[in-house]
Amino acid sequence: MAGKRRRAAMRRYRWQQIPEAVVRRLSYYLRELERQTAQGRDTISSSELARTLGLTDSQVRKDLAFFGQFGYRGRGYHCRELAAAIRRILGTEKIWPVAVIGLGNLGRALLGYRGFAEHGFPIVAGLDIDPRRLEPPVPGVVLRPLEQLSDVVRTLSVRMAILAVPAAAAQEVADQLVQAGIQGILNFAPISLSLPPQVRLVRVDLAMELEQLAYTLAHSRARRRPPPDS
Amino acid sequence: MAGKRRRAAMRRYRWQQIPEAVVRRLSYYLRELERQTAQGRDTISSSELARTLGLTDSQVRKDLAFFGQFGYRGRGYHCRELAAAIRRILGTEKIWPVAVIGLGNLGRALLGYRGFAEHGFPIVAGLDIDPRRLEPPVPGVVLRPLEQLSDVVRTLSVRMAILAVPAAAAQEVADQLVQAGIQGILNFAPISLSLPPQVRLVRVDLAMELEQLAYTLAHSRARRRPPPDS
Repeated sequence: MAGKRRRAAMRRYRWQQIPEAVVRRLSYYLRELERQTAQGRDTISSSELARTLGLTDSQVRKDLAFFGQFGYRGRGYHCRELAAAIRRILGTEKIWPVAVIGLGNLGRALLGYRGFAEHGFPIVAGLDIDPRRLEPPVPGVVLRPLEQLSDVVRTLSVRMAILAVPAAAAQEVADQLVQAGIQGILNFAPISLSLPPQVRLVRVDLAMELEQLAYTLAHSRARRRPPPDS
Repeated sequence: MAGKRRRAAMRRYRWQQIPEAVVRRLSYYLRELERQTAQGRDTISSSELARTLGLTDSQVRKDLAFFGQFGYRGRGYHCRELAAAIRRILGTEKIWPVAVIGLGNLGRALLGYRGFAEHGFPIVAGLDIDPRRLEPPVPGVVLRPLEQLSDVVRTLSVRMAILAVPAAAAQEVADQLVQAGIQGILNFAPISLSLPPQVRLVRVDLAMELEQLAYTLAHSRARRRPPPDS
């Protein structure tokens, strides 16, 4: 029994050391496996999975090897099985209730964003310092003044929050989230937050998405007009 | 002269073949190089750049080798120089005016999002099918009915649009964007769009960001309490 507990603790400890970028690629692997499954595919080779994501074979195998042995020699990965394994690794085989902090335009938009719940992240609460922003009600979402955050966190088992307040208020509000027991923050405010090490922070960088568009547009003439003599 | 044009065309052609994931990593390299420069660093080795992003050395070198020769033997990369080169590759050394389509809560929030302009993507226009959504005005942003999209695209040299309309309307509006000459679309609607091949599409998947938080929280006990006997 003690050995079992120790092995579990060691596994947790090891998984903490895995680079964030590896964990980020797990999300991409998962989306691709779900897409392949939806198209009726049963198995996929590491080289094909790598190619669809522009990675090398060995990067894919190395990433997955952090977490165990998943492939079958000569057959590659079983799509559904690897997807389920990745969900277990990511922790998204269970439901994570989320609170949105700041109910301005962005916060209100996020309350209604359907992409969250379908991946296991239902928005259960919205909080704002301004009581006028708690109207109109949203079905299935508890709207409360920010000062009641600790109550909301406790009663709704919320561990993650989406921070959608103005940049000038973001650090102060983030400190309140940490005080209230929030352990993971998705930050939309375009500033860097300083948080205690046990709180995980992910910052949304929408400009990065536009950079991807810029690349294609900057080099797109060849798409419409093939190079001469080719 | 013809040889020069041909070389330029060949380069464009080659850059079209580079996997999207490689181009995405360029954005990450750029952010990291900017961070290092802000901290006063002049040079960085490929292995250090790799480590901060959880990649292998050879992946970093292979990614950059698509675009040229950037490192100095024994000294690694010059941070500022490589950042400037990546901006040229991404096409973000110039300004890309952007239009936001759909001025509900999300669209209105994006009009005010400051993270865009500072990376070279000023929001210059907002359009909606509903004229009531064109009020109140936003300084520096032209607000117009959607039917005037072609005019806006032409007069403001807009090539990119952010699509922030409800999922049910997204495909129809996307078709109108293509008609009006938009070449790159950042899609917030949680549905897959079907577009002609010459139009580049990037979809924002906010659930992927929450998955990153879930991973840390699911495996976080070791952070607060070290494994026994360690």
